[in-house]
Amino acid sequence: MLIKHLAVNKLASASIISLFVLAGAAARDSARAAGVEEDSPRYTTSGELQVPAQYREWVFLSSGVDMSYKQAAVPGHSTFDNVFVNRGSYRSFLQSGMWPDRTMFMLEIRAVAAAPASINKNGQTQSERVVAREMHVKDARLDGGWGFYAVADSGMGIPIKRPAECYECHEAHAAVDTTFVQFYPTLLPVAKARGTLSPGYLKDEKVAQTPK
Amino acid sequence: MLIKHLAVNKLASASIISLFVLAGAAARDSARAAGVEEDSPRYTTSGELQVPAQYREWVFLSSGVDMSYKQAAVPGHSTFDNVFVNRGSYRSFLQSGMWPDRTMFMLEIRAVAAAPASINKNGQTQSERVVAREMHVKDARLDGGWGFYAVADSGMGIPIKRPAECYECHEAHAAVDTTFVQFYPTLLPVAKARGTLSPGYLKDEKVAQTPK
Repeated sequence: MLIKHLAVNKLASASIISLFVLAGAAARDSARAAGVEEDSPRYTTSGELQVPAQYREWVFLSSGVDMSYKQAAVPGHSTFDNVFVNRGSYRSFLQSGMWPDRTMFMLEIRAVAAAPASINKNGQTQSERVVAREMHVKDARLDGGWGFYAVADSGMGIPIKRPAECYECHEAHAAVDTTFVQFYPTLLPVAKARGTLSPGYLKDEKVAQTPK
Repeated sequence: MLIKHLAVNKLASASIISLFVLAGAAARDSARAAGVEEDSPRYTTSGELQVPAQYREWVFLSSGVDMSYKQAAVPGHSTFDNVFVNRGSYRSFLQSGMWPDRTMFMLEIRAVAAAPASINKNGQTQSERVVAREMHVKDARLDGGWGFYAVADSGMGIPIKRPAECYECHEAHAAVDTTFVQFYPTLLPVAKARGTLSPGYLKDEKVAQTPK
């Protein structure tokens, strides 16, 4: 999923992730009161991203559990990855199979609830504890046209500078325009129909389907 | 999660669930083209619910994996339960900790993708296959103020008549107003703060915390 190198390669990036925790409720309440639509990225003069407070009202793309792009499972924790995209961009993708400029994704990594949670006796549910949040933004003003940000507890997105594993992996393997549309079940059929799948993704799929 | 008796007690309700599959894309495209906001339930004269075509653009509440309110795990399948609520009602709940009249929930039961999915090597991701969809609607015009509906492939919600296990379980154990807010991590803190948790839920929590 997006910025997955951070979520997945947790052993290597533990030192980075530990710096970034859930933004305070105060910032959210403030933005909500202001009625900001939050459908376009906003930056500080130093290049930090103003994290949209109401991203939970964006369009949900998918959720995965304990995903890893490395072969081995990561021991000692269990998390859900919830991915959201701003509404205007979602609707645009449904029409074109492509992301418009100023598209924003939020990856919310949320801890699995302790079991049993309420009357649930099996499987896994999501807890109130957000482990980390990370953003991916398409913006022609950014180097390479896309930027990754780690969400700090200040509520700001701290830019992840190139070169970094997130950029390399997304550019090589993501299904559409450096985004992991292969994990977004309502969008993959659109990309297939519109012919917007990336050469890297199509090559990966061909290799996966070749008998060994 | 909502209407969970259907999702969970799958052995007993397999005969019901097998009747209901994903609505066609044609109905969705038609409603989208019409630009319908879909923030209030609409019924046919015979009491069927017109299933909102754009529920994936509603607010995501949470996702669980292989949840069960029975003790035993259900063998032979693995699914995600995605729950969505209409936007206006979500915003109202954030303010009051209660659901306004005409609130609509969608439970989308989606199959786990075959592994490995694309470059993901661990955990579980969601596939394009929707196993079943079910709705829960608050409407003062309905018997008891709430109704459950099974989504048929016609795109209509077929009412589940009382008495039924879904009504009984939600009324006895759901955290707020017959809805399983205990599984919706952005809403449970609101209900706690507003004092809108149900007596049944508070009793369950007290029992769960009593040393055995």
